[in-house]
Amino acid sequence: MAETDCIFCRLIAGELPADVVYQDAAAVAIRDSNPQAPVHLLVMPKEHYDSLDDMGKRDEPLLGHLVRVASRVANEHGLGETGYRTVINTGSGAGQSVAHLHIHVVGGRELTWPPG
Amino acid sequence: MAETDCIFCRLIAGELPADVVYQDAAAVAIRDSNPQAPVHLLVMPKEHYDSLDDMGKRDEPLLGHLVRVASRVANEHGLGETGYRTVINTGSGAGQSVAHLHIHVVGGRELTWPPG
Repeated sequence: MAETDCIFCRLIAGELPADVVYQDAAAVAIRDSNPQAPVHLLVMPKEHYDSLDDMGKRDEPLLGHLVRVASRVANEHGLGETGYRTVINTGSGAGQSVAHLHIHVVGGRELTWPPG
Repeated sequence: MAETDCIFCRLIAGELPADVVYQDAAAVAIRDSNPQAPVHLLVMPKEHYDSLDDMGKRDEPLLGHLVRVASRVANEHGLGETGYRTVINTGSGAGQSVAHLHIHVVGGRELTWPPG
């Protein structure tokens, strides 16, 4: 269910502006408003989940779908040749700044190691 | 199918040593041999996939399962409180050093942004 105080739920509902690059029945992909690379997208479920830890066994098909959408939008944005990184932060201590599960897709520049 | 020249397939087959922290019918989690944080694990499918781009629609449940295994082992290793980051590198340009799909699970220290 949408949560009225969740900025990603409000964005998905069209109540806040977003640069949407992909959507289907279950998933939305937008450009990150604070990009860390030439291509920096966020893939999220339309349904609200606080974080990865909020997903149960029955959510595995949706979770896999989200990751495949990440792969799809990465390739659609030209990252198939150069490669790309998908990142999920779980918990504020890991940098999760919005409590609505989302996958970062980063590419278009050299990506260093470790990943933060 | 296992690929004889894939070090992760050989590791899963028991032909190479590994520090296995979890396994089930479809997934294996090991400690990264070159850890970048106090906890640094790798989750991979037992079946060989070159990369995330190698997964199709029908693989979505498996892919979601792998990400949930990442969440599970992160929590089992005490990262539930401090948070953790899961990372998939696709392509050598993004730092994918073994061509067998794997998810990095990193935590136990401060994680900076951007993620590499």
